Amino acid sequence: MIAITSNTISDERLQEIVNHIEKQGVQAHISKGTDRTVIGIIGKADPQLVEQIRAMKDVENVIKISKSYKLASRDFHPSDTVIKIKDVEIGGDQLVVMGGPCAVENAQQIDEIAKLVKAAGGQVLRGGAFKPRTGPYSFQGVGVEGLEMMAEAGEKHGLLTITEVMTPEYVDVCAKYADILQVGTRNMQNFDLLRKLGEIDTPVLLKRGFSSTYDEFLNAAEYILAGGNPNVMLCERGIRTFESYTRNTLDLTAIPVLKQLSHLPVISDPSHGTGRRELVEPMSKASVAAGADGLIIEMHTDPDNSMTGDGVQSLFPDQFANLLVDLEKLANVMGRKFDTVKQPVG
Amino acid sequence: MIAITSNTISDERLQEIVNHIEKQGVQAHISKGTDRTVIGIIGKADPQLVEQIRAMKDVENVIKISKSYKLASRDFHPSDTVIKIKDVEIGGDQLVVMGGPCAVENAQQIDEIAKLVKAAGGQVLRGGAFKPRTGPYSFQGVGVEGLEMMAEAGEKHGLLTITEVMTPEYVDVCAKYADILQVGTRNMQNFDLLRKLGEIDTPVLLKRGFSSTYDEFLNAAEYILAGGNPNVMLCERGIRTFESYTRNTLDLTAIPVLKQLSHLPVISDPSHGTGRRELVEPMSKASVAAGADGLIIEMHTDPDNSMTGDGVQSLFPDQFANLLVDLEKLANVMGRKFDTVKQPVG
Amino acid sequence: MIAITSNTISDERLQEIVNHIEKQGVQAHISKGTDRTVIGIIGKADPQLVEQIRAMKDVENVIKISKSYKLASRDFHPSDTVIKIKDVEIGGDQLVVMGGPCAVENAQQIDEIAKLVKAAGGQVLRGGAFKPRTGPYSFQGVGVEGLEMMAEAGEKHGLLTITEVMTPEYVDVCAKYADILQVGTRNMQNFDLLRKLGEIDTPVLLKRGFSSTYDEFLNAAEYILAGGNPNVMLCERGIRTFESYTRNTLDLTAIPVLKQLSHLPVISDPSHGTGRRELVEPMSKASVAAGADGLIIEMHTDPDNSMTGDGVQSLFPDQFANLLVDLEKLANVMGRKFDTVKQPVG
Amino acid sequence: MIAITSNTISDERLQEIVNHIEKQGVQAHISKGTDRTVIGIIGKADPQLVEQIRAMKDVENVIKISKSYKLASRDFHPSDTVIKIKDVEIGGDQLVVMGGPCAVENAQQIDEIAKLVKAAGGQVLRGGAFKPRTGPYSFQGVGVEGLEMMAEAGEKHGLLTITEVMTPEYVDVCAKYADILQVGTRNMQNFDLLRKLGEIDTPVLLKRGFSSTYDEFLNAAEYILAGGNPNVMLCERGIRTFESYTRNTLDLTAIPVLKQLSHLPVISDPSHGTGRRELVEPMSKASVAAGADGLIIEMHTDPDNSMTGDGVQSLFPDQFANLLVDLEKLANVMGRKFDTVKQPVG
Repeated sequence: MIAITSNTISDERLQEIVNHIEKQGVQAHISKGTDRTVIGIIGKADPQLVEQIRAMKDVENVIKISKSYKLASRDFHPSDTVIKIKDVEIGGDQLVVMGGPCAVENAQQIDEIAKLVKAAGGQVLRGGAFKPRTGPYSFQGVGVEGLEMMAEAGEKHGLLTITEVMTPEYVDVCAKYADILQVGTRNMQNFDLLRKLGEIDTPVLLKRGFSSTYDEFLNAAEYILAGGNPNVMLCERGIRTFESYTRNTLDLTAIPVLKQLSHLPVISDPSHGTGRRELVEPMSKASVAAGADGLIIEMHTDPDNSMTGDGVQSLFPDQFANLLVDLEKLANVMGRKFDTVKQPVG
Repeated sequence: MIAITSNTISDERLQEIVNHIEKQGVQAHISKGTDRTVIGIIGKADPQLVEQIRAMKDVENVIKISKSYKLASRDFHPSDTVIKIKDVEIGGDQLVVMGGPCAVENAQQIDEIAKLVKAAGGQVLRGGAFKPRTGPYSFQGVGVEGLEMMAEAGEKHGLLTITEVMTPEYVDVCAKYADILQVGTRNMQNFDLLRKLGEIDTPVLLKRGFSSTYDEFLNAAEYILAGGNPNVMLCERGIRTFESYTRNTLDLTAIPVLKQLSHLPVISDPSHGTGRRELVEPMSKASVAAGADGLIIEMHTDPDNSMTGDGVQSLFPDQFANLLVDLEKLANVMGRKFDTVKQPVG
Repeated sequence: MIAITSNTISDERLQEIVNHIEKQGVQAHISKGTDRTVIGIIGKADPQLVEQIRAMKDVENVIKISKSYKLASRDFHPSDTVIKIKDVEIGGDQLVVMGGPCAVENAQQIDEIAKLVKAAGGQVLRGGAFKPRTGPYSFQGVGVEGLEMMAEAGEKHGLLTITEVMTPEYVDVCAKYADILQVGTRNMQNFDLLRKLGEIDTPVLLKRGFSSTYDEFLNAAEYILAGGNPNVMLCERGIRTFESYTRNTLDLTAIPVLKQLSHLPVISDPSHGTGRRELVEPMSKASVAAGADGLIIEMHTDPDNSMTGDGVQSLFPDQFANLLVDLEKLANVMGRKFDTVKQPVG
Repeated sequence: MIAITSNTISDERLQEIVNHIEKQGVQAHISKGTDRTVIGIIGKADPQLVEQIRAMKDVENVIKISKSYKLASRDFHPSDTVIKIKDVEIGGDQLVVMGGPCAVENAQQIDEIAKLVKAAGGQVLRGGAFKPRTGPYSFQGVGVEGLEMMAEAGEKHGLLTITEVMTPEYVDVCAKYADILQVGTRNMQNFDLLRKLGEIDTPVLLKRGFSSTYDEFLNAAEYILAGGNPNVMLCERGIRTFESYTRNTLDLTAIPVLKQLSHLPVISDPSHGTGRRELVEPMSKASVAAGADGLIIEMHTDPDNSMTGDGVQSLFPDQFANLLVDLEKLANVMGRKFDTVKQPVG
């Protein structure tokens, strides 16, 4: 970390600042430039110390040189983390596809979709039992019953399951039924939830906050890792920009950046990342080519008649199946393993 | 709400869509343009219906004409909401200044600061007992003990108190000690927290999410109002943009926009909104001139020696007192009441 | 286009608005909803009319339903535009790779790089003779002499050439030497330049403004097309967002969106789009998988010793050659033709 | 400036980098931290050198400590620049109000508006003769004739005039007729235009690019100053963010930041900054309270009947006059001089 002051600062005040900094158990070296003085600070760079120094009078700016997260960083853990759940390995050379509806509606719906996901080559069944809604008058999900329905469908069709958990109190019940717990974009910095997830060892798919930087994202992962749960995967799901044609701007550069800064598996969500059905196919392919370890994709069966808010970004079953046939070819080129049933639907 | 389709759609499919829409208990009128067909939908426009229609095949886009919040809107409640707590009225013609440290550290610190806030003319003491930290290794606050210290200091110096509540479980204890509960920017869409706050009647200061639109902000307020708590004030605290010189970009236009769309009081937070001490003074003044009902401002006593992360945006006591002297003059010009002690410190 | 007013508007005023609108030669239909009145406007929707209606008293908002560009839209021109230059087809089933330095420095440098681009399988040589610099004290390029050097190198090695043109006055001289003219991100809305490019028929690669929406981008292309030059290709090169780890955020979703809205070829620029050498390879691959018709990639030979500002995003020659070997495999999977020399360098 | 490398770099390579850097005539000091090595570079920090060092292999990042602009900086020129044109001083203790239509339409229109601007207390008449339009089919302005009409109206009513210049070729003719030349937001980095404006001494109002940082903005001003024209004023006119309710997000924090970093006058444009008539009044007041030296405000006379694209953000004459009455009171509180006619219209 370095602190910057103007060159007009007095030598006494400069020494006072250095003394204050060194009281924190770090070393400080002064280096005078032509119009700014740089104080190099060696030893540690936790966010609190950064803030304290930045708050000091006459300090114009503080710049972090080292990263503020440790367990999540590749410097600390050079080899890829591979999360093994039953026969699925996430973060290794397998491509993992998670598919399913936005919301679990009833037992028949989730069973039917699970069958289609499995038939197409997917390994994980997704589905929400509790829904975060931005307005108070929306459908809020079917609750614990939905978890049971999904667990049953997953079991029957040989799929892992993933579901979103939204509050610390629901972590245990969700972990009882699902193989992977998802933290949604609005909860990326819900620190109580992250702490609770750090206390269990169920794998967690942590979605990037829709306006969070890579650094904030990896610090959020650090919360879970620091709590003792090493099974964290990162999920890029689109960020908020000035462009409103798509619901979000899927930041695919996040994939190689996160793989470089961290050892954790990286999953892409082209459904929420674009918010438009017709863009899911090209952005799924682009995600794999960018190096994603897996994809999480929304699919439903009959949007016209269900009318339950499945979302404009859900693929139809035949689109999903055909996409996975194409992904197999791409996976091969990218040196990844992925097998479909070879018989596209429709 | 209107739905848009291409003109190449068949009449049968168009009729099918209309039938599906009308099954939801609303009316649909078709209007063919030169290259797009518009389906006007009259009756209601809840977010779920918007989503359902948008998900239908052949529907290119859905545009909301009416607002998705009701209780928060000025259409529904034309006169200003004034929240009266003891002798302070927020949202009326008084200008309200909330001042204090980022974090409560100990009884002496909060007492000393409370005295300074009161002396300068402030009406509310702010201070955090629990701190949301973006990394797991930071200072997390002093907890319930801090609430007691702050309540005592407020009582002694004749100030209301405001503190941040971060999880539903802490709502009751925070409401026991503080006069106003603050929802932080990262929790603006923590729906469980909002629901819990809707069940009490303690006034709530809801901070805008740092990447939330006005519409999302007012929908979050709607959650609390819909739960039965009418005492909500909105707080602009800066949004995330491409400019990184300031920590956030304080969106002062939010003040007149929110006053226009809603009847709720609007408070400005120039401390977090800028993240730089030297910008708090001009942006406080600008907030008042833009029509803010109040300000929430960080202040501390001795940043060098405390070293407890008070934050680079905190004013020194003399800056705070001098600012309030200037604000009194501005408040008069703006037709608002505000009284300082007439004797600036320093 | 639709105009929206409050329902509290008087019938007389509403009729007055309708009369004013219809004077413009369009039809207006009133449709009253529960709290807003919608005026549907059928006939045309040029930006000026939109603005005029939006400026009218009592009109709350105007929403465009039809697109404001025509020649650039796929509605108007359903089949893909393929731009044929010598034996290279851009926008067809060939993948086109443009490679070369940020700036032409001298004849030897550009000859050497041209040789490497050709050897690796590239079809177009890129290089800047005039450089737009964000500060007045930077290197401004070698000028017309650089154009000659590049034309000679292209000719010798059998490559097309592309160079940036920055002002209307330089269009003719650049068109004399280069096969393709590039409009930089800061000039996307330099309307005099666009108009001048509309008057010639040299192909133009139009870069997206770093904060421009898809709609603004296609309107800029429309300027050139409307002038009479049909040979326009669109280039995604990264947008400005809150994330500062990369220089820009490469918006790969732009590729399928632009292919859908428009018939023009779409090129991706992963070098400027990321601003970091190590991200060029994965984002090149992702671009091809997202459906790009081509790539424009920076490459240089010896950054340490040249010291001429080649840019941190330039690939080394062996990285470039190895990337093209991988791209060939990807192109095959994507149904595109691309041939490399089969002998990666290094 | 500092360059950062990993600690895993070899001593030889580190020395090689240092040698390369010192060849540029600057000094380099190595400082090893716990996981990164910092090379402090003392002497100069022009953008080209920054880029060169950043491009070197093994250099992870380069961080500028000093500013890249000089003439525009307050370090270099501590006292405020005051631009005196006839009897108006911009940047001193006067508040300057520039008012007028978006576009000059005809002699009668501009004469009538000039009379209203003068009557209300404004000092400068604004009006566009050439219009930058984002689509090729829009109204492009009345041209040189409009300049003459505006000059005549200004002369007759005792107002200075300001008009936008869009290309280098029009600088001379615009400077012949207008007292101040405006550079629009899309031209902030049109370097040929900036260079041409540096060669004359007519005052220039430089608008901030709608996605430009403060640093880029001041570097653009530096272009004009470096050319020899010291009469530059900076204009904040709104930036592009995710919020689309307003056309732009007016960044009022820019006002105190620019006044702090630079000695140049700062003007605010609440009309384009908000794009909505009803927000111009509060944001004008907020601009003055934030410390703006002046305002540029759109006003027209009869939007319904003129139908010439005046823009939804234009004030009606009575709104303009009443605003200026309020601004006078605010100006007094802010220690600025401003006189209206004391008789609000309407």
